[in-house]
Amino acid sequence: MTRPTKPIEDFNQLVEYLNEKKIQKNVAVAWPEDEHTREAVEMAGKTGFLKPILVGSKQTQEKYEGQFETILADDPADASAKAVELVRNGRTQVLMKGFVNTDVLLRAVLNKETGILPKGRILTHVTAAKISTYHKLLFFTDPAVIPYPTQEQRMAQIEYIADMCHKFHIPQPKISLIHCTEKVDERHFPFTEGYMELKQMAKDGKFGNCIVDGPLDLKTSCSAEALNAKKLESPIGGEADALIFPDIEAGNVFYKAITLFAQTETAAVLQGTLAPVVLPSRGDTVKSKFYSLALATMISTEK
Amino acid sequence: MTRPTKPIEDFNQLVEYLNEKKIQKNVAVAWPEDEHTREAVEMAGKTGFLKPILVGSKQTQEKYEGQFETILADDPADASAKAVELVRNGRTQVLMKGFVNTDVLLRAVLNKETGILPKGRILTHVTAAKISTYHKLLFFTDPAVIPYPTQEQRMAQIEYIADMCHKFHIPQPKISLIHCTEKVDERHFPFTEGYMELKQMAKDGKFGNCIVDGPLDLKTSCSAEALNAKKLESPIGGEADALIFPDIEAGNVFYKAITLFAQTETAAVLQGTLAPVVLPSRGDTVKSKFYSLALATMISTEK
Repeated sequence: MTRPTKPIEDFNQLVEYLNEKKIQKNVAVAWPEDEHTREAVEMAGKTGFLKPILVGSKQTQEKYEGQFETILADDPADASAKAVELVRNGRTQVLMKGFVNTDVLLRAVLNKETGILPKGRILTHVTAAKISTYHKLLFFTDPAVIPYPTQEQRMAQIEYIADMCHKFHIPQPKISLIHCTEKVDERHFPFTEGYMELKQMAKDGKFGNCIVDGPLDLKTSCSAEALNAKKLESPIGGEADALIFPDIEAGNVFYKAITLFAQTETAAVLQGTLAPVVLPSRGDTVKSKFYSLALATMISTEK
Repeated sequence: MTRPTKPIEDFNQLVEYLNEKKIQKNVAVAWPEDEHTREAVEMAGKTGFLKPILVGSKQTQEKYEGQFETILADDPADASAKAVELVRNGRTQVLMKGFVNTDVLLRAVLNKETGILPKGRILTHVTAAKISTYHKLLFFTDPAVIPYPTQEQRMAQIEYIADMCHKFHIPQPKISLIHCTEKVDERHFPFTEGYMELKQMAKDGKFGNCIVDGPLDLKTSCSAEALNAKKLESPIGGEADALIFPDIEAGNVFYKAITLFAQTETAAVLQGTLAPVVLPSRGDTVKSKFYSLALATMISTEK
């Protein structure tokens, strides 16, 4: 007897799921020359769901001889190109940035001939957060890549985030289009007009099985009490699974407010590429890097 | 012997200060016809630092006879006009919205002939927050009024918030200009260029004794650890007293993230007007309305 697959509601459940299912994928790590990257990779390596292929220096090669597969690279740019190539040729299903400047890795990712962003695809950043005061995972986009999304970019953001929620076994994810109020205001906030169109697309099934509603503010998206206090109704009902932020400033402030002031664990990936890209930033904890690897593995695994 | 006045670091200290100094101001309350407004007004009335003058219905007049001064009004619009007049003629030093739509009260506030926004002044919204996981009050602007501030509006925001910090006895407030990164990026984020100019103005003493730095993200503004992890230096040193958000979406998300997900008490006022205006929103707690009244009283009191 198989039991129905329950939604994954936190990162422990995610790691358990990957282990139970005996999932094993490969991750190409570009220039793992700092302690933080290595710690995260070793954690993933031990857990077993992700086999690292380290593209790095001679020292890295010597250190991990017999433990992990390594490929020699001259410098961060060379390592980035070689790691991207491992994704292109199907050797690895996840890409991770090590001690490389983000723009150096992105140059390799975005290279028109040798990169891994197919023509017409949109690169965007998605975070999954487990906030201690929210009862399930909350996915959101985009705190880091697209400054002021166009309507086309918002469509891609909804598509990717709906897909991620499905892969976390949320059958009908509730996706909220965030704005500072619940009013459409064509004059000051033209994108709120676009929200109307996105809702219609969702109703027409463009993003698969999901509920898209907005404009909603953060509170009416994530609190039934706040929704009721404003005497509003929404099919999201204060139970959002995912948030689409109007711009990078709002997304970034959200990311940093919850990690700094609320107890929150996060995992993040770039979407749009042939394989999810884990792009940890200097301030991230080792745990957050590890969860990002688990998130990327899950996305690569589930159909 | 007088001891030097210490900075006020939370709302209890604020209320204590107002009581110790036996401060008593008047507040005009426009249309106090709902339970929430009345509760907040009664709390303030009992504490003693704020004497309410209730501009409301016959029922309000009867209910509070002998307890508070009342002025009869026909409806919310009439109550708003009469309450604004009380500020204009100096009878009250604070204005509070009751059960009135915000735009109705604002119409009275902004009326060119009978309103209380002097020509050339800029209306903006400032919140003071005591986040349980931050060690002092954090002032920020603007989560509610100005969509995308112009440089002139940002100057006013810094001026008002520096002034508020001084009134809370913070001798040299640290004011952070928020952005998603620490890089000036004229192409994608032209306002970050403007930040450079604002910093220079601060150095030239335009905003009084204060430190203005940016662009800084939320974490490097409020965490010395995050600042160090990024190997950055800032005279704010991760100890911001005040945050200037790049747009209303970021400010609004911050406000709602800290109140929803972190344990946070807030107080808020409109600035730019002849007297601070307390504009509670439906979702606010009675406590938050009460603290807003205390904040407004403090601003009206201190020089």
